[in-house]
Amino acid sequence: MAPTWRQLVAEKKLRQEATIPNEWILPSLPPKDQLNITTFPESSGLLSSKEIDITQSHVDVLLANLANGTWTAVEVTTAFSKRAIIAHQLTNCLTEIFIDRAMARAAELDEHLKATGKVAGPLHGLPISLKDQISLKGIESTMGYVSWIGKFPEQNSVLVDVLEAAGAVLYVKTNVPQTLMWPETYNHIFGRTVNPNNRSLTSGGSSGGEGALVALRGSPIGVGSDIGGSIRIPSAFCGVYGLRPSTGRVPYSGCVNSLEGQDSIPSALGPISNSIFGLKAFMKAVIGQKPWLYDPLVIRKAWDEDAYALADHGRGEGGLCFGILWDDGDVRPHPPVLRGLRKVKEALEASGHKVIDWTPHKHKEIYEIGFSIWASGLSEDYYVTTEPTGEPVLTSMTLDEEDVLTAAKDVLPANAVLVPSTFVPGSGPNTVSAYTLWQRHKAKRDLRQEYVNHWQASAGRTGTGRPVDALISPVAPFVAPPHGKNTSANYTLVWNVLDYPALVIPVSRVDQELDTKQPAHKFLSEDDKANYEAYDPAIYRDAPVSVQLVGRTLEEEAVIAMAEIVDAALKVGA
Amino acid sequence: MAPTWRQLVAEKKLRQEATIPNEWILPSLPPKDQLNITTFPESSGLLSSKEIDITQSHVDVLLANLANGTWTAVEVTTAFSKRAIIAHQLTNCLTEIFIDRAMARAAELDEHLKATGKVAGPLHGLPISLKDQISLKGIESTMGYVSWIGKFPEQNSVLVDVLEAAGAVLYVKTNVPQTLMWPETYNHIFGRTVNPNNRSLTSGGSSGGEGALVALRGSPIGVGSDIGGSIRIPSAFCGVYGLRPSTGRVPYSGCVNSLEGQDSIPSALGPISNSIFGLKAFMKAVIGQKPWLYDPLVIRKAWDEDAYALADHGRGEGGLCFGILWDDGDVRPHPPVLRGLRKVKEALEASGHKVIDWTPHKHKEIYEIGFSIWASGLSEDYYVTTEPTGEPVLTSMTLDEEDVLTAAKDVLPANAVLVPSTFVPGSGPNTVSAYTLWQRHKAKRDLRQEYVNHWQASAGRTGTGRPVDALISPVAPFVAPPHGKNTSANYTLVWNVLDYPALVIPVSRVDQELDTKQPAHKFLSEDDKANYEAYDPAIYRDAPVSVQLVGRTLEEEAVIAMAEIVDAALKVGA
Repeated sequence: MAPTWRQLVAEKKLRQEATIPNEWILPSLPPKDQLNITTFPESSGLLSSKEIDITQSHVDVLLANLANGTWTAVEVTTAFSKRAIIAHQLTNCLTEIFIDRAMARAAELDEHLKATGKVAGPLHGLPISLKDQISLKGIESTMGYVSWIGKFPEQNSVLVDVLEAAGAVLYVKTNVPQTLMWPETYNHIFGRTVNPNNRSLTSGGSSGGEGALVALRGSPIGVGSDIGGSIRIPSAFCGVYGLRPSTGRVPYSGCVNSLEGQDSIPSALGPISNSIFGLKAFMKAVIGQKPWLYDPLVIRKAWDEDAYALADHGRGEGGLCFGILWDDGDVRPHPPVLRGLRKVKEALEASGHKVIDWTPHKHKEIYEIGFSIWASGLSEDYYVTTEPTGEPVLTSMTLDEEDVLTAAKDVLPANAVLVPSTFVPGSGPNTVSAYTLWQRHKAKRDLRQEYVNHWQASAGRTGTGRPVDALISPVAPFVAPPHGKNTSANYTLVWNVLDYPALVIPVSRVDQELDTKQPAHKFLSEDDKANYEAYDPAIYRDAPVSVQLVGRTLEEEAVIAMAEIVDAALKVGA
Repeated sequence: MAPTWRQLVAEKKLRQEATIPNEWILPSLPPKDQLNITTFPESSGLLSSKEIDITQSHVDVLLANLANGTWTAVEVTTAFSKRAIIAHQLTNCLTEIFIDRAMARAAELDEHLKATGKVAGPLHGLPISLKDQISLKGIESTMGYVSWIGKFPEQNSVLVDVLEAAGAVLYVKTNVPQTLMWPETYNHIFGRTVNPNNRSLTSGGSSGGEGALVALRGSPIGVGSDIGGSIRIPSAFCGVYGLRPSTGRVPYSGCVNSLEGQDSIPSALGPISNSIFGLKAFMKAVIGQKPWLYDPLVIRKAWDEDAYALADHGRGEGGLCFGILWDDGDVRPHPPVLRGLRKVKEALEASGHKVIDWTPHKHKEIYEIGFSIWASGLSEDYYVTTEPTGEPVLTSMTLDEEDVLTAAKDVLPANAVLVPSTFVPGSGPNTVSAYTLWQRHKAKRDLRQEYVNHWQASAGRTGTGRPVDALISPVAPFVAPPHGKNTSANYTLVWNVLDYPALVIPVSRVDQELDTKQPAHKFLSEDDKANYEAYDPAIYRDAPVSVQLVGRTLEEEAVIAMAEIVDAALKVGA
């Protein structure tokens, strides 16, 4: 008799546990009521002071010290591996752990530097963690699907080869929600990843494992993917930097994924780090490997230093003009999010830049067309994927796991379509025709055209002779919410539909004094009312406050440069 | 009572005739049995010797003489307008004719040059013809659909604004087949465009009007579109140069189209001209206007002079290595096409380049997946478009127009799907689900990945240390065939599915002595047998012989540079 899906999970969990070195098991865990565990790794007793020093360092320092031999790749890999395992014990952020492979690779790199006096590449010796869907030869990419346990990839994802060619050391993969199409992180195999700032809150998703791991400095750069906010939501909720590039700049080939063949609003891989430098180092190194030679979907477009010097933005001379999105016309953000926006506005103005209000143009229509495109074939995709083992398709991310599992298979997340219990692939009331899907694509294209026009039209209001240089937007109408309560990815999805690059910048943290509940406003919608009612600063204690900086399609270099300007302005004010 | 579709056509035809200046009507037409009418315009008596001089000039000379004032924009526009009207009377290549608008524009440009001493842009004063689907405010874009008669666009296509900003003069639009999805040119409104080299042969399609017009030098640069060969087939059949760029380099926004929302194998706009310089001037001028600021689907990628200098191809030093595709493994080309390939190989070798045989990798699977993606929603698209007037959907391009029109509405072209007579949008046996379409997209992506690997793997065979620099491929397994006999676009479609840029280079003409019928070979397929049997050099008298040079995605600059190398090599040998 074939094993049940629960048996498959139990066997896989044992295999996962076997990859954790015994000597890195924490002697004691923090008490359950200690919600913020961000400082726990340093005080755990497992890390030497040098290891603490290494793991607290930003990517610029790490790369310099690896290149000049101050720290060996083996030392750095050991330090981050250890700290990743600690982070895992605190937040449940890892899926695959392959430290032996990483140590062998690090030793090779040390040999190379010793023998040649030269680094193997721009990321020489730097450990990089990977979202579970990125495949390494011989290591499972279950993506949280029980049905994919035991599938061992026969080759690396293109990104894995590209990162290794650039000198990186790969050592762990990180947790995701089943289907990837949730803004939180829970699946039947690996369970839930919690937020290190407050374990009663979600880490966000779908790259929630990366968010928690990077925030705990268990990784200097993590690679996430983002189809509707999956890099930016965990980055914002966990308090780190994250970039969703435009599609086609980072190679995706060879990764496993949901909704494969849905090419209209594709997922994009991108970096998560503790500094913007980390994001830039990743992008520059990956693009520098000419990934378009290996992945047909990568755009042939070199890293552009002139664009990074803001050639298309007056080179920054005389100041930039940012548009600020206070709300999307549908749901007003909670007090800490609005305070974060005000703080950015003040910091930019104090640094000589201009900030004007940005009118959302049909944001609700934009994210609704996005959902409708995904929904066109989503239920069949989930059905076909989970059918082999009968694992339930998750219907909620609430805290009670049993609640999650008792739900019938034929109910899907909010914003998705229902799978009828008699579902037959290719039929059923929720199966739309290819022609209907084309009409949705067309509607999306028309909305993108309108947004381009809307952006261009801002030139009359900036005083720079240019349209706004970038937008400052909330990442969500709330900071990290309690598990199961992340009800909306609309503030991120809108930029995926438009394919605009967006970079998350941490700004502050929830302040119990400053972020008190405000009197009710005239509600924009039912969702707005529900969001208003959900707010109580005590629930969100210690949650990071972030914004996203949004640029125009394929403007990654300028987005990074402008985010550095925002970040520097905030630090002057801090 | 609403007018019948035939009444609508009659009214539209009268309006078209009214746009043709009386004084440009040919006093006499060539005899019906004069098949090759390429030299007729010069001898027609309508063109002055200066007008002949202007219209025989290539784009480099035209731009130089317009810029230095040797020829005014009004003179050049008059000459090309006149010659376009002559070409139209010989081949039926035009749809919309707006010479008054063009003359006003030309006069403005002359004023500008006089007043400022400077050109208005890199295409100052150059007439450019447009395929019918490219919209100008207030001028119909029927695209051959009776149902679209009377729809006057409220704004210009982005390309129109971009070309005018670059200094071009727009004056005529050109004929297409109904639906655009035919490699010949016939529709109910404007009828058939014939091949000026031999009027018993097709001009090709869907940009057949452009092919005939440019070949007759009624336009220095024509803009076509290409989803499966629609720029390259007419270019090759008519004996001119044509470039299908990768998707996303030339702005498409604001054009009318077939299969809208089918975003997986999109159509691309591109230039047709009598010289490669003409293609380059167009691409450089259009990209130089930063079209990504106005069209969300244009890739932010400047014209790259370094790529044009073959930076990714060893700067051409020590010679290039070309792969030559003798056949696609499915249908062997006719003798003149094979002779053209041999001629290119010999010319390149004589110029110090290397030419190796290229093995087609799953070409049949590639073009079949392309057809299956189009077919997924094609029948609904045709139905919805033609339903308002009841105009018949064409089922053939054969010469007898009545044959064409008596066909029932419920039958579609070969390679398309059938529309059942009881067709209801959203249902029916040929309506596939969005999920099924996604699986086809996925299969296509996997084939693209295989082809990238196949191309990279050629590095071991070139002797340059690089993979092949470009491919030399037939454009079709035949030269321009008789009307209704263009049975296959497979040699072009394969590169659309892969999204590789391809540039058509004229090589020769059918030679009754050199291109005799060969003994039967071992047939590759039923299609191969049928193609073999269709050959007789007498049928194809005077038809041009061409090849296409194929590069890698988004390598337009290098494709143009390498095509110049091939063209120069051929001219040395000539």
